[in-house]
Amino acid sequence: MKICVLGCGAVGGIFAAHLGGLPDVEVYAYDVAADHVRAINDRGLRLSGAEQFTASIHATTDPGQIPRCDYGIVATKSIHTEAAITVAARAFDGASAVCSVQNGAGNEEIIASHVRYVIRGTTFPAGHLIEPGHVGYDIQGDTWIGPFEPSHTPMRFVQGLAATLTRSGMNTIALEDARGAQWTKLIFNAATNPVGALTGLDHGSATRFAPTGELFDAIIDEGCAVAEALGIKLDQHPRALVEKGARAPGRHKASMLQDALARRQTEVDFMNGAIVEWGEKAGVPTPLNRAMWALMKGMEESWKRE
Amino acid sequence: MKICVLGCGAVGGIFAAHLGGLPDVEVYAYDVAADHVRAINDRGLRLSGAEQFTASIHATTDPGQIPRCDYGIVATKSIHTEAAITVAARAFDGASAVCSVQNGAGNEEIIASHVRYVIRGTTFPAGHLIEPGHVGYDIQGDTWIGPFEPSHTPMRFVQGLAATLTRSGMNTIALEDARGAQWTKLIFNAATNPVGALTGLDHGSATRFAPTGELFDAIIDEGCAVAEALGIKLDQHPRALVEKGARAPGRHKASMLQDALARRQTEVDFMNGAIVEWGEKAGVPTPLNRAMWALMKGMEESWKRE
Repeated sequence: MKICVLGCGAVGGIFAAHLGGLPDVEVYAYDVAADHVRAINDRGLRLSGAEQFTASIHATTDPGQIPRCDYGIVATKSIHTEAAITVAARAFDGASAVCSVQNGAGNEEIIASHVRYVIRGTTFPAGHLIEPGHVGYDIQGDTWIGPFEPSHTPMRFVQGLAATLTRSGMNTIALEDARGAQWTKLIFNAATNPVGALTGLDHGSATRFAPTGELFDAIIDEGCAVAEALGIKLDQHPRALVEKGARAPGRHKASMLQDALARRQTEVDFMNGAIVEWGEKAGVPTPLNRAMWALMKGMEESWKRE
Repeated sequence: MKICVLGCGAVGGIFAAHLGGLPDVEVYAYDVAADHVRAINDRGLRLSGAEQFTASIHATTDPGQIPRCDYGIVATKSIHTEAAITVAARAFDGASAVCSVQNGAGNEEIIASHVRYVIRGTTFPAGHLIEPGHVGYDIQGDTWIGPFEPSHTPMRFVQGLAATLTRSGMNTIALEDARGAQWTKLIFNAATNPVGALTGLDHGSATRFAPTGELFDAIIDEGCAVAEALGIKLDQHPRALVEKGARAPGRHKASMLQDALARRQTEVDFMNGAIVEWGEKAGVPTPLNRAMWALMKGMEESWKRE
């Protein structure tokens, strides 16, 4: 079996390294960072932290080098989905399925405009790039996948990928409807990420400081109302993810805060922007998500003027 | 006539310098910045920019040096009102009146717990401290004053101060009800200040960039609804102030953005915090003002953790 991971950063690297340990799977990783790709090809993809091992995979910056694959796993930042799947789509055909394990909502729609079968995914493992070829595996967790409804992806694709991922050490649950898991994490992210990025507070501090903790709740309430109007049954209250995160050791900075500190375009369009859009379709007002979106777009705009 | 200016920074300095030019007025300025006070006493208070002159006034860091005054003008940041009026109150008696020319709402209430007669004021001139003893006079504008209702300040105090200020070159309008002018500026400030501070955008850029420009409008709408419920008739739509500010030359940074960049406690409690509080009293929901307040409090909190 051949699997291609698009975007071999923290999350993509964790997936690629695990899959690379399976004797019957060949892993291809497409990434735009030439030094990272070179280090992976020279010395293997190294994981340290929650698990420590080095896996042998094929990495490339040239999508022309990727053979036809049975599965794709998209793990770029959401803002790079379009660029990645556009160049890599030729590796997939009517007998392949491509799964997003990214944050936010809207990635599956982009992928589906380039490939036949798409899988909706939500993953909880997290990490960070330590150096080229070396990923820190910070937080372990499960992955939830299911058919992307508009592409009518057969469950056998979903079950096949879940079985392979689970066998590699990444516990993955195949679901007929994976929207509940995705929206739970989406709503959580849409509260915690912009508030972290706008205030500079780490996740635990923002949860415990009453004004921002209450703002989390208010933003979450809007997202839950949109999910309910869409008929999506959340698999847990997003507040449970907030509290679980706040109990984690260390002072974890939300990925959007990391992006803000590095002056990198954020994923806010795929988080708060997605909730606002779905809210409009469902007739549910989302003024706080719109405000968070506007503030983050304003922050990004200010970087262009510096 | 003796007038004491409390807080001789940009706005206080503009008032003190103008009043210092009147032959029949003695001006006392109380400020905590010893180098600024020393420079004023050594070389006079210098104004440059929209007007250029140097005025002779009495400056002091010691409130015990202030004689009994006919009028007080409070021009500290709102967060310092309580400290300033507590030590300076002894300069005022039942024949004096003290006027706030500060941003936000809530300052008059603090002043009234220390002195008999209070005047509600709103001023548009703006400036910045160039160096000790030297204030840059950036923007000219009118001042609107009226009785602080709970202290039942007689109009003769309001008219007397307005006449003196106007005579000094600071055009001042005496009103029976000055709440409309104050709330117009309050609502304007509660939109433009936190959005500027959170995004880093200068006022003109934030107005013209659609996401933040629309956020201004949404925050302003909440403030207007609170004012209406309180029976306050705004003297113009706060949006007019937004547009006037956006047409000004240069890239003016909102004072709260200046505070954020300097890691100084902001006036958000007196701006969005005041609108939230009045909204609660009037039964008008203010979720966006509350969100802006929470984000600014979170930002201030993050500075303590650095």
